[in-house]
Amino acid sequence: MSLISSISVRQFRNFSKYEARFDPGLNLIIGANGTGKSSLLEAISLNALSKSFRVHRDQVCIKEGESYFQTETIWKKGETEHKVQVNYLKDKGKNIIFDDAPLEKFSDLIGYFPLVIQSPENSALTDGGSKEKRNFFDRLFVQSSRTYLYHYQQYHQLLRQRNALLKELKLKKKLQYDPRLEFIDEKMIVPAWQISSFRKEKIQQFSLRFCQAFNESFSRYEAEIRFQPSLNSIGFGDYESEFRQRCQKNLESDILLSRSLSGPQSDRFSFLLNRQPLESTASQGERKLWITLMKLSEGEMIAAETEEKPLFLLDDLFAELDLENSFTIVQRILNQQQVIITSTDLADISKHKIDAIEPNLKVLNLP
Amino acid sequence: MSLISSISVRQFRNFSKYEARFDPGLNLIIGANGTGKSSLLEAISLNALSKSFRVHRDQVCIKEGESYFQTETIWKKGETEHKVQVNYLKDKGKNIIFDDAPLEKFSDLIGYFPLVIQSPENSALTDGGSKEKRNFFDRLFVQSSRTYLYHYQQYHQLLRQRNALLKELKLKKKLQYDPRLEFIDEKMIVPAWQISSFRKEKIQQFSLRFCQAFNESFSRYEAEIRFQPSLNSIGFGDYESEFRQRCQKNLESDILLSRSLSGPQSDRFSFLLNRQPLESTASQGERKLWITLMKLSEGEMIAAETEEKPLFLLDDLFAELDLENSFTIVQRILNQQQVIITSTDLADISKHKIDAIEPNLKVLNLP
Repeated sequence: MSLISSISVRQFRNFSKYEARFDPGLNLIIGANGTGKSSLLEAISLNALSKSFRVHRDQVCIKEGESYFQTETIWKKGETEHKVQVNYLKDKGKNIIFDDAPLEKFSDLIGYFPLVIQSPENSALTDGGSKEKRNFFDRLFVQSSRTYLYHYQQYHQLLRQRNALLKELKLKKKLQYDPRLEFIDEKMIVPAWQISSFRKEKIQQFSLRFCQAFNESFSRYEAEIRFQPSLNSIGFGDYESEFRQRCQKNLESDILLSRSLSGPQSDRFSFLLNRQPLESTASQGERKLWITLMKLSEGEMIAAETEEKPLFLLDDLFAELDLENSFTIVQRILNQQQVIITSTDLADISKHKIDAIEPNLKVLNLP
Repeated sequence: MSLISSISVRQFRNFSKYEARFDPGLNLIIGANGTGKSSLLEAISLNALSKSFRVHRDQVCIKEGESYFQTETIWKKGETEHKVQVNYLKDKGKNIIFDDAPLEKFSDLIGYFPLVIQSPENSALTDGGSKEKRNFFDRLFVQSSRTYLYHYQQYHQLLRQRNALLKELKLKKKLQYDPRLEFIDEKMIVPAWQISSFRKEKIQQFSLRFCQAFNESFSRYEAEIRFQPSLNSIGFGDYESEFRQRCQKNLESDILLSRSLSGPQSDRFSFLLNRQPLESTASQGERKLWITLMKLSEGEMIAAETEEKPLFLLDDLFAELDLENSFTIVQRILNQQQVIITSTDLADISKHKIDAIEPNLKVLNLP
């Protein structure tokens, strides 16, 4: 069991100083446009995942005119309390203090307080691109498996080295296989294989879980998730030789594009609704429902794999959903251990009958 | 004055057959997720702009399993009725029948029934890229000026020829100035200059109008639109020589990228809220407000330029806006001649007090 008890932020986004306490179960953050609802969720996720889900550069989170920000969360894991403090200084960058000791590797934090975030940024997930879909599954897998996290980090470090080397070869106009490239490629095989076989197995499990949830809530629809791995081999021996062959075959294009074409970074995903690509046929509301149910399945899968029920952060959950669909979603959400939902308006809550089902919900009003 | 009186669609998106009538003033389309609210707006815009604002390939609009779609609108312009019929056949493509005669050039339709559309697809407008911003202004200008439309089409036809030629030169590895390229470049100068000087003047006018509207509705904010043209020259003579110089200077990169770097297609725009880029600081609700006010300003500008008040199509207007902001928006909308708004729920309408202000609104319930 892991829960968030409180957060306090300083000079973060539009907040000079703000503190909030959370209860188990359903928590609502109510506030007008621009009062900082999403920023509070961002601060919580920063303290769980070591980086913001909204921006690449943490510096953007500093309040205008200030030189630092600080976010502090108190978590409860079983019977123990933990404190996570993230400090970002304009000139010195970020440090993370875990239970009063500085964290050496930020990624050690990932998965310790499992988290599922739904935000308007997720809409890219249903817009057809494979990158966001890969990111979705990677975020789920790194939180639920230390092994996956390890191989994922190792592989992507090698990939960055490889792409830098390709760029160098392009500048030198050397379109040949370089010994340094071969050295990197050989080191890539094991993590690539680990990522690949993990994905194959777990995406199938996820897909079963998700499609069932989708078809239950939305009986007239048939949902399908397709996974097309970049390399098709089944056993490690075959994978190894296919990987080597591909690296050699794509050499010229890899160098010209300064980008590595084969490997897990090219795995493709597609989402289908009634056998049609989601991006060309589904309405905005149907996409929102798809994403929300994916997020719920993500949480259930994390819970199944790690035996820890994750915290759900759901930003502007009700926008775009009709009454019937949001009611179905709310039913599933009320089974969760701890959920934080933002909304512009408390009237939404009674409209969706949440207060009738869950009279003990906690409401935070942002000024 | 131009109004839409009715639409009927066949085998379009999820509709087998559907007809609807509209009144002047405020029209509401109410329906659950996936009932076709956005598809109806799409059909209306297709009959006014000759193509869908949601997809590039019209074929996607055909109902699954069918071989054609048809959309028919009745418009009133002054005292005269006009009928526009768009037919799309799977194998034969599109034809447009205007008052029972086939239209030779689809673009002749553009601007005849002026239209402003706000849809969730617009969110790209506030996400930092320049392309969507250029598209926004181009759509406004082509509807309000036949001259702009003419030069815009001419320039983009030349640009397509130029890029095809660059691709050819790249394949042949000829990194030199080709006489055919020079021929195209010379023809590009006049339309490029026309587009450029039109944009400079009109964007300033638009910006004044918009920023004033924004600051009125949102007094604690300061909005700013910045326009950075790709070429800076002021008079035609200077522009001409700058254009030539740039084409020669960028020759190698143009060929390597198969893309033309100089000219109006590289004009840049940025949106600032309180002197910060909108994409890094504004909340989702603030972005929605920004887009909605841009759309209202677009409509006012079209009305001022063409003396025709445009039809407003506002898809899921209320999502993401808080009560106060949506009320401000609604006040401005009620001044318009004809508006069609979609929503999942009639309760939204009373929540936003629209029925109290405008008791004669027309409500269409989608099954």
